[in-house]
Amino acid sequence: MNIPNSTKQRVVIIGGGFAGITLAKQLNRQNLQVVLIDKHNYHTFQPLLYQVATGGLEAGSIAYPLRKVIQGFPDFYFRLTTVKEIDTQNQKIISEIGDLHYDYLVIATGSKTNYFGNKEIERNAMSMKTIPQSLNIRSLILENFEQAVLSNDTSERNALMNFVLVGAGPTGVELAGALAEMKRAILQKDYPDLDIQKMQIHLIQSGDRVLNTMSEKSSAASEAFLKSLGVNVWKNMRVQSYDGRTVTTNVGTQFETATVIWTAGVQGACPVGLPASSLVSQVNRIRVNAFNQVLGFDNIFAIGDIASMETPDFPQGHPMMAQPAMQQGALLGKNLPKILQGKTPEPFVYNDKGSMATIGRNLAVVDLPKYHFNGFFAWVVWMLVHLFSLIGFKNKAVVFMNWVYNYIRFDREGRLIVRPFKKKSFSTFTTDEV
Amino acid sequence: MNIPNSTKQRVVIIGGGFAGITLAKQLNRQNLQVVLIDKHNYHTFQPLLYQVATGGLEAGSIAYPLRKVIQGFPDFYFRLTTVKEIDTQNQKIISEIGDLHYDYLVIATGSKTNYFGNKEIERNAMSMKTIPQSLNIRSLILENFEQAVLSNDTSERNALMNFVLVGAGPTGVELAGALAEMKRAILQKDYPDLDIQKMQIHLIQSGDRVLNTMSEKSSAASEAFLKSLGVNVWKNMRVQSYDGRTVTTNVGTQFETATVIWTAGVQGACPVGLPASSLVSQVNRIRVNAFNQVLGFDNIFAIGDIASMETPDFPQGHPMMAQPAMQQGALLGKNLPKILQGKTPEPFVYNDKGSMATIGRNLAVVDLPKYHFNGFFAWVVWMLVHLFSLIGFKNKAVVFMNWVYNYIRFDREGRLIVRPFKKKSFSTFTTDEV
Repeated sequence: MNIPNSTKQRVVIIGGGFAGITLAKQLNRQNLQVVLIDKHNYHTFQPLLYQVATGGLEAGSIAYPLRKVIQGFPDFYFRLTTVKEIDTQNQKIISEIGDLHYDYLVIATGSKTNYFGNKEIERNAMSMKTIPQSLNIRSLILENFEQAVLSNDTSERNALMNFVLVGAGPTGVELAGALAEMKRAILQKDYPDLDIQKMQIHLIQSGDRVLNTMSEKSSAASEAFLKSLGVNVWKNMRVQSYDGRTVTTNVGTQFETATVIWTAGVQGACPVGLPASSLVSQVNRIRVNAFNQVLGFDNIFAIGDIASMETPDFPQGHPMMAQPAMQQGALLGKNLPKILQGKTPEPFVYNDKGSMATIGRNLAVVDLPKYHFNGFFAWVVWMLVHLFSLIGFKNKAVVFMNWVYNYIRFDREGRLIVRPFKKKSFSTFTTDEV
Repeated sequence: MNIPNSTKQRVVIIGGGFAGITLAKQLNRQNLQVVLIDKHNYHTFQPLLYQVATGGLEAGSIAYPLRKVIQGFPDFYFRLTTVKEIDTQNQKIISEIGDLHYDYLVIATGSKTNYFGNKEIERNAMSMKTIPQSLNIRSLILENFEQAVLSNDTSERNALMNFVLVGAGPTGVELAGALAEMKRAILQKDYPDLDIQKMQIHLIQSGDRVLNTMSEKSSAASEAFLKSLGVNVWKNMRVQSYDGRTVTTNVGTQFETATVIWTAGVQGACPVGLPASSLVSQVNRIRVNAFNQVLGFDNIFAIGDIASMETPDFPQGHPMMAQPAMQQGALLGKNLPKILQGKTPEPFVYNDKGSMATIGRNLAVVDLPKYHFNGFFAWVVWMLVHLFSLIGFKNKAVVFMNWVYNYIRFDREGRLIVRPFKKKSFSTFTTDEV
């Protein structure tokens, strides 16, 4: 991988998400050689992916070049590649562009979609964890409407205008709300030759409330907000199969749809090579101690979504969200130099600042540790928090301007099919006039 | 294509470029049924494609949804497809999504890259006429540097950092300048482990001056600007071949490079079906009379780059630029209703407002009909003209903000490889450490 040998200890960080870049910034000028590896050359601000998917923001507004994050940091290196395996025996990682020895390894590879082993759904549904995936969803939504315009078959046309979102966590809820607002403000004007009232948005949740990691008050408010926007909320329902046309569920209800977006589960995106004893098998996360050290290894750490630190308050690990990731990255940034100097590291204590979700225009829910609120003020708080969390002044400014414009004009100009998404299974449809 | 029958006359416009959308806007509420067809669902502001390719702007900032252009226009339809053939006998077009009868047909399909029959160059070189092509160039530039970092072979590394631009028209000149500024302001900081001074930008021109459609004064100034930025300008040189690694020229000079960007020629992007007598064979443009009527047809028109209107001042047709396209679109928008009412249409007279090109920061050249100037003031004029020509308030605002940011910070944050571009031929390189 062409990293020069150094007398300094080499820290290899896999992943430039919230955890990885927070750590990298802390390690600047700590007398370490640092190699940051990612499969993309940019950091993704994942909480706003749904706005890219629905045309409200451009991809570049929520991405930030990773080389710029470490610009000017002495003895820092970035490598664009996918790590295939960790060879703990020989203290090296094995990647598409070669092997690399590490003195300390930090796994910050985040999470990926969990289809719970259902290969058919994986093949036919859309996922939204990366920018290319969000752009695929954007293209698919628009291609569906372009195809619906051409169809004289009512059931086909309805299936093309039917959107099924599985999983009512923040991503599913926010995407459902954004789709409902597209329907209301844009699609009727863009497609005067379609009856957009036929467009349906179904949000399916296996549990008995939406946003089930938030307060009951916020769940109830967000469900009411979703319904006010025309979203069909289905609770206590599990999706069993999707063949590219028909969704079947455990309660017998079926949906005919060209689009299923799966946000019902995440799992750790873990490179192979760690012993099974270091992993939590079902969710593929890595067991770490209070210093984010991987169980069984002194010099391997895991931070962020991929790390499962079991504590009395969080017996299944911390929530897979930006806040714990950034806090773990920041702490490890302080602990690593201490460990190198033989000093005692500090254990991780999660500072839960709360959580929030936005459903639409003036509609959001916020849970602070001691106070829950929703509506317009929550929506303003949501915007400010997300705006200030974005990396880079330009991204903040461009996102802010887009939001102001979209708000005033009820518009989203990013409805562009730049790279068409070829659907794999919907082509089984027979169209009478193509 | 699911266009309802109407008692009104049907005008089919193929192409949503400058000519097509200017015409479409004029035809609103003219008691016509209008069908606008394009292979993309957005209008592209082509003059700024080079800034997308070099990471200065996001694609969405120079694109505008075509459905929004005609939003609210009664009896207007947009269809996303590629027209394969025109059947003049039966007055219909044949497209990927079906056939469509026309009463009046307007061909506004613009231009595409002209490789003058050299298939090898076409296969190995990059073209920059569309947004996806610009994004491919952006990805390739960045992938080259990521690959160069990994290489220990000096000749390979140099070839990866070597950029050959063929054709010194506005596109080639502007791209060369932008690459030179990337080298100076960004790449050295982003790739501290590369010797960026080894990066070379070659601009090759067959004629004896750059920007040969502009004044001699502007040619000389832009060449001086390019040289001041470190661009190697080669005049009176023709590229003969490029196998993916080596460029050969008619004067014996060779260039080893992973990247050739071909801006040396354009040709009409004409659907098949018109008789050969209606075409100018070498450049594939359509012969039109002073009313943009295609020779031999009363009800078929061609406007913009695709149209070749031979006049005493322009014996080979008007320049293939935005200005004549918009003026022809506007005039046809007035003439079509006149023709329908049996009135006499107005002949086209080109109002040459001048031309301009920007080379870099504070460096541009402007030719007004009677006055030529360059430098800082020309650069300000260039920016204002392009800013006000962009469609849509949001695009104007976002582009302006990006420019201010890029200017103040000497930065371009769009250096993102969102969709990797797989090079076809550079894989023949042997890399010792991959």
